[in-house]
Amino acid sequence: MRTVDWRDDHVAIIDQTLLPGELRVIELRTVDDVISAIQRLSVRGAPAIGVCAALGVAIAARCRAANGSDAATAKLDALRIRAARPTAVNLMWAVDRMIEILPEGPEAVTAAAVAMLDEDIATNQALAARGADFVQELIPGRSLALHTHCNAGSLACVEWGTALGVVRALHERGLVERVYADETRPLLQGARLTAFELVEMGVPVTVVADGAGPSLIARGHVNAVIVGADRIAANGDVANKIGTYPLALAAARAGIAFLVAAPESTVDLETATGDDIAIEWRDPSEILMYQGFRTAATGAEALNPAFDVTPRDLVTAIITERRVVLTARGERMDEQLSAPTSGSQLE
Amino acid sequence: MRTVDWRDDHVAIIDQTLLPGELRVIELRTVDDVISAIQRLSVRGAPAIGVCAALGVAIAARCRAANGSDAATAKLDALRIRAARPTAVNLMWAVDRMIEILPEGPEAVTAAAVAMLDEDIATNQALAARGADFVQELIPGRSLALHTHCNAGSLACVEWGTALGVVRALHERGLVERVYADETRPLLQGARLTAFELVEMGVPVTVVADGAGPSLIARGHVNAVIVGADRIAANGDVANKIGTYPLALAAARAGIAFLVAAPESTVDLETATGDDIAIEWRDPSEILMYQGFRTAATGAEALNPAFDVTPRDLVTAIITERRVVLTARGERMDEQLSAPTSGSQLE
Repeated sequence: MRTVDWRDDHVAIIDQTLLPGELRVIELRTVDDVISAIQRLSVRGAPAIGVCAALGVAIAARCRAANGSDAATAKLDALRIRAARPTAVNLMWAVDRMIEILPEGPEAVTAAAVAMLDEDIATNQALAARGADFVQELIPGRSLALHTHCNAGSLACVEWGTALGVVRALHERGLVERVYADETRPLLQGARLTAFELVEMGVPVTVVADGAGPSLIARGHVNAVIVGADRIAANGDVANKIGTYPLALAAARAGIAFLVAAPESTVDLETATGDDIAIEWRDPSEILMYQGFRTAATGAEALNPAFDVTPRDLVTAIITERRVVLTARGERMDEQLSAPTSGSQLE
Repeated sequence: MRTVDWRDDHVAIIDQTLLPGELRVIELRTVDDVISAIQRLSVRGAPAIGVCAALGVAIAARCRAANGSDAATAKLDALRIRAARPTAVNLMWAVDRMIEILPEGPEAVTAAAVAMLDEDIATNQALAARGADFVQELIPGRSLALHTHCNAGSLACVEWGTALGVVRALHERGLVERVYADETRPLLQGARLTAFELVEMGVPVTVVADGAGPSLIARGHVNAVIVGADRIAANGDVANKIGTYPLALAAARAGIAFLVAAPESTVDLETATGDDIAIEWRDPSEILMYQGFRTAATGAEALNPAFDVTPRDLVTAIITERRVVLTARGERMDEQLSAPTSGSQLE
C-alpha cells in the first residue's frame, strides 16, 4: 500500500509515528490536518512530504471553491502548508507547482497532485535502477554490506523509496548481504521504519546506535553508505537527517563510497551551499523525554537540530532519477542539472 | 559522597543505573556482587571500575581467610573479577596490583585497595589542574563551549572526575560557558549522569542526540572536545565509549582540539595499537528495547559495541595526572611514559 494516497476527496496516510507497532491509516480532510500531519511526522521523508503537501493544496482549492472563495484565498492556505517544515525542499517545490495551477480550478489542482503520486513512484524506480547500476559498477562482483541512516524507503515516499529503493533494486539482483541501519535518535526512524521495511523485503538488517556507525565503517564492516536527502544545494552540499554527516566523515576516512539517492525535486538551485540551508530545530523534549519517561537529568537543556549538512567533498555521488553526479570529484548540481542527460530511464 | 567506597567489611557504591531519578547506595559483600555490579554498569567508568575491582579483591582475600583458604584460592576470585569486562584496562591494572599483595594477607590487600580510593581522587585532581592549564593555554582569553561524550565525571571515578574534572577546574576559574553532552545511546550516560553532574556543578549543559555532535562542531558551536578513555594503547590510540570517534573526526575537520583526559592507569603499554584493544560487545537488547518498550522492528538484529577506537592522529592531546602527550604531533604514550616528567603536581 502507498504511504500517501488520494481517496475521493481526502488524503490517506500511514501514520508513521505508530509504526512498527501499529499500521494505522489516517485521513487528512483539511489544510490544518495536512500541516499537523507534516509537523508531527505522521508523514515524513522529503518526497512523501512533497506529495502530501501537493494533495493538501488540492484540499485547499476544493474547500475554497466549495465556500465560494477564489484561488487567491487558496494560495494563502498553500503558503501555510509550504511553511510547515523548513528543510525538505520537496515541500516548497511541490506546493509551488500546485500554486501555479490554482487559477485553473480545484479539479485541475487535484489532477496534478494525484499525478504526482505516480510520478513519485516512477521517479524512485528510475533512481533505484540507476543507483543499483552505479553501485554494481563501483563495487563489482560481491555481495554488499550497506549502511544507511534514518529512513529513505517507501515510507519516505509514496512507494518504493530512494536510498532503500536502491537497496531494494540491488537485493532483487541478489547483491545485498546485510544493511546496517542507525537507530536515528531522537525519533528512531531507523530502528522503527527502515528495519521494518528491510525485514519486509527479506534483507538481513542490523540496527546500531547512531554513535556506532562510524567505527563499524572504520573496522571494515561496511562496503558503502547510502542515504537520502532533504535538500541538496546547487554546489552539491547535502542536508539530511541529523547524524548523516558523521557517516560521511567516517566513509571518507575509510575510503568507501558515501552515496546520496534523491529525486531532482530535492535539489534546490536557489540554495548556493549547505550554509544557506535552513535547518529545522525541533522541540527539545524529543531529546529530554522518551515514551513519557524523562531520560535527561532535571535542569539540563537540549538542542534538537533535525538535519545536518554534509559538504560536497565528502559525497562520492548523488544519484537522481536522471543522472549520477560525482560530487566529490567536483561535479556541481547546478551545472549537471542544466546539462543534457544521457541514458536516462525516464527520457 | 564517593561513587565507590569501603565501609568496614564491604563496598558501597552509588547504583548508576538508577540515576538521575534515584540516588541509591548498594552494598557489595561478595565477589559475585562486585562482578555483577561491574557487568550491569551499576558501577562504570574506567577509574571507578578499577577501584571497585581492587576492593573486590580485598573482599575475596577476606572471605577466603575467614574460610581458611589460602591466597592462591583468592587469586582465582581476583581473576574472575579481572574478566568482568574486557575493555577498560584500569580493571586489569587494579586487580593485578592487588594480586601481588595477596600473599601478604587480607588486611594488607584491604589497606592497599582502600589507599587506591584516595589515590584516585588525588590523581584526578592533579589531572584536572593540568588539563585546565593546558586548555587555558591552548584557547586563551575566552569562556569556553566544550563538548563531551558519555560520562567521565565523578561518577566514573571515586570522586572529582577526569574529563569532567578538567571541566570542573575550568569552571572554578570562571572559564566554562556551556557544555554540550551527547546523550550517549544506548544507556544514556550523557543525558543521565553527565547532565546531572554538570547541573550540580552549576555549569549550563545542553544535551544533544549522538548524531548531532559532529554538525554542532562543524557549525562552530564548540571550542574543544574533551572525553575520558577506557584504554589507551602504547601508540596513543584511544578506546572510549562508542560514539567518541565521530567527534574526533569532526573536531579534526573543524580544526578544534580533541582532548582525552585519563589517569596513567588507563594506558596499556602491552597493547601496541587500537587494533589490539578488545572491544566489549554488549547485549543487542540494549539497542532493540528501551525501558521495556521494543523500539526496533520485529525481525531486526542489532550490534552493540560498547566502545570505539579513535586513532592517535585525531587526538590533539592526552592529559594524564603527570603529563600532556601531544599525540597528533607524533608523541607516543610508551615513549612519554618512560621519559622523566616535568612540572608534575604529583611528584
